[in-house]
Amino acid sequence: MKKALAFDIGGTKIYSTIIDEEGNVIGNIDKFSTPKTLDGIKEVLKEQISKYEKDVDIIAIATAGAVNNENTAVIGSTGNLPKGYYTIDFQSLSSKRVFLENDANAAAWAEYKIGASKETSVSVLLTLGTGVGGGIIINDRLLKGKSGAAGEMHFKMFTDKRRKCTCGSWDCFEAYASGTALKRDAEEMLNDKNVTTYDVIDGVNKGDKKMLEIFNRWHNDITQGVIGLANLFDPDCVVLSGSMAQFVDTEKMEKEVNNEIVTAPTSIRIAQAGNYSGMIGASLLALGGLE
Amino acid sequence: MKKALAFDIGGTKIYSTIIDEEGNVIGNIDKFSTPKTLDGIKEVLKEQISKYEKDVDIIAIATAGAVNNENTAVIGSTGNLPKGYYTIDFQSLSSKRVFLENDANAAAWAEYKIGASKETSVSVLLTLGTGVGGGIIINDRLLKGKSGAAGEMHFKMFTDKRRKCTCGSWDCFEAYASGTALKRDAEEMLNDKNVTTYDVIDGVNKGDKKMLEIFNRWHNDITQGVIGLANLFDPDCVVLSGSMAQFVDTEKMEKEVNNEIVTAPTSIRIAQAGNYSGMIGASLLALGGLE
Repeated sequence: MKKALAFDIGGTKIYSTIIDEEGNVIGNIDKFSTPKTLDGIKEVLKEQISKYEKDVDIIAIATAGAVNNENTAVIGSTGNLPKGYYTIDFQSLSSKRVFLENDANAAAWAEYKIGASKETSVSVLLTLGTGVGGGIIINDRLLKGKSGAAGEMHFKMFTDKRRKCTCGSWDCFEAYASGTALKRDAEEMLNDKNVTTYDVIDGVNKGDKKMLEIFNRWHNDITQGVIGLANLFDPDCVVLSGSMAQFVDTEKMEKEVNNEIVTAPTSIRIAQAGNYSGMIGASLLALGGLE
Repeated sequence: MKKALAFDIGGTKIYSTIIDEEGNVIGNIDKFSTPKTLDGIKEVLKEQISKYEKDVDIIAIATAGAVNNENTAVIGSTGNLPKGYYTIDFQSLSSKRVFLENDANAAAWAEYKIGASKETSVSVLLTLGTGVGGGIIINDRLLKGKSGAAGEMHFKMFTDKRRKCTCGSWDCFEAYASGTALKRDAEEMLNDKNVTTYDVIDGVNKGDKKMLEIFNRWHNDITQGVIGLANLFDPDCVVLSGSMAQFVDTEKMEKEVNNEIVTAPTSIRIAQAGNYSGMIGASLLALGGLE
């Protein structure tokens, strides 16, 4: 069975393992803090590659940032990674082919192949974490757009400039649907800079009414965004992944979304492909393209 | 050369003509007021079909409302057409094959084949008229979604329930970007129920500052919506059609959009396929599917 040496390169951590063509994780999970320099990142990759490339057919990298349509390079900037990250020539790091895909796109592909959106024709994946990522699959293909950057969840939730988004623009979905957004909701509603996302979740669990109000605002903002996505894509399902997904009441959200949309009813689901879905999806995409 | 008998069925008018496989209008344009009953609509179609079906290879209908993925039936409700419109068995009206597509989707296809989005890989068409329609083309295919209803421009511009949309939900793009929306902007900003879209345009042309302020709000709302679409689809271009498109400053909008998006720069263009783009697109789609 064909195998990939997989990486997941994020702003905080780099993960690496070996994955087979059925999406099984068959290696140890190696974990590194993301180095602050380009050379540092290249060193981590090179060391893993020199250890494992002889055992695999391809190198599969899920990475923060948009990836070009040739799956060879990162395009544009990537908030949390060192400046100039997009200049890294990943192919030069291995004698085997190196395949890249955006991490949310890769996770969407993993859900589609072995997880929550299996056997659907149109699906939207949202990663709800520190930020919000998106991956959209239409008729067995990732939506990549003209340059590879499609699926960015930066559509407006307000048009009168209330909250700055990490992207530099205002009031994007990411700024209302991420974990950071829940903290910001709490900061605004409690007038307290020190409140954390955890405080809100903890308060909700303890039945604190104010915390529940804050949480419901966040939950509703995600619902409002999903309504727009459902009207645009008419998807079989919307899959929620990332550390914040576990707090979503999918049954409630599904009911609210289907009550508002003009397209056919959709389903809201929690991701099933696990914590390594980025590496799994990148590996399945990379290995799927091999002869 | 193959030919289609084409119809464009809208809430106010039904148009009909003959179109060849290159998208040329080769018949007279026949025009009818849309009958208020299902039987009335069927009568109009039947009469045209009985006159012309012997001369053509297929019947191509661009219609208000979502059309299923088999292009055989309208699904769900269509605001301005008689109740139960979706129950019409269009195929029963002709011995030739009858092909349907949503009017905005058809117009998008016409722009892609012979108009403003020719030779692009990803394009978004917006019809700015009484309402707002959408048609999205990705890699030589219309985005149809699981049921055929994708491309509905009902994503939120606000999430705090300010303005009711025709779809029954609140604050959709349609409610801020249509011609009707410009009138509503003016009503709100002038506190005058009788002001018309024309009054605003006329005022802008005469240099009226208040009217310009109203117009700029409408123009900016469209820009904000297009920013979201550009981040989601990473399109080569966004094509504006419909009666209100002529008032958009595409150069200004393109600059503003490209200044805000995280994807690669896109281009904002005015539609070029003309008033009959719905019929042309439906005909090209219908004839393209023939052997």
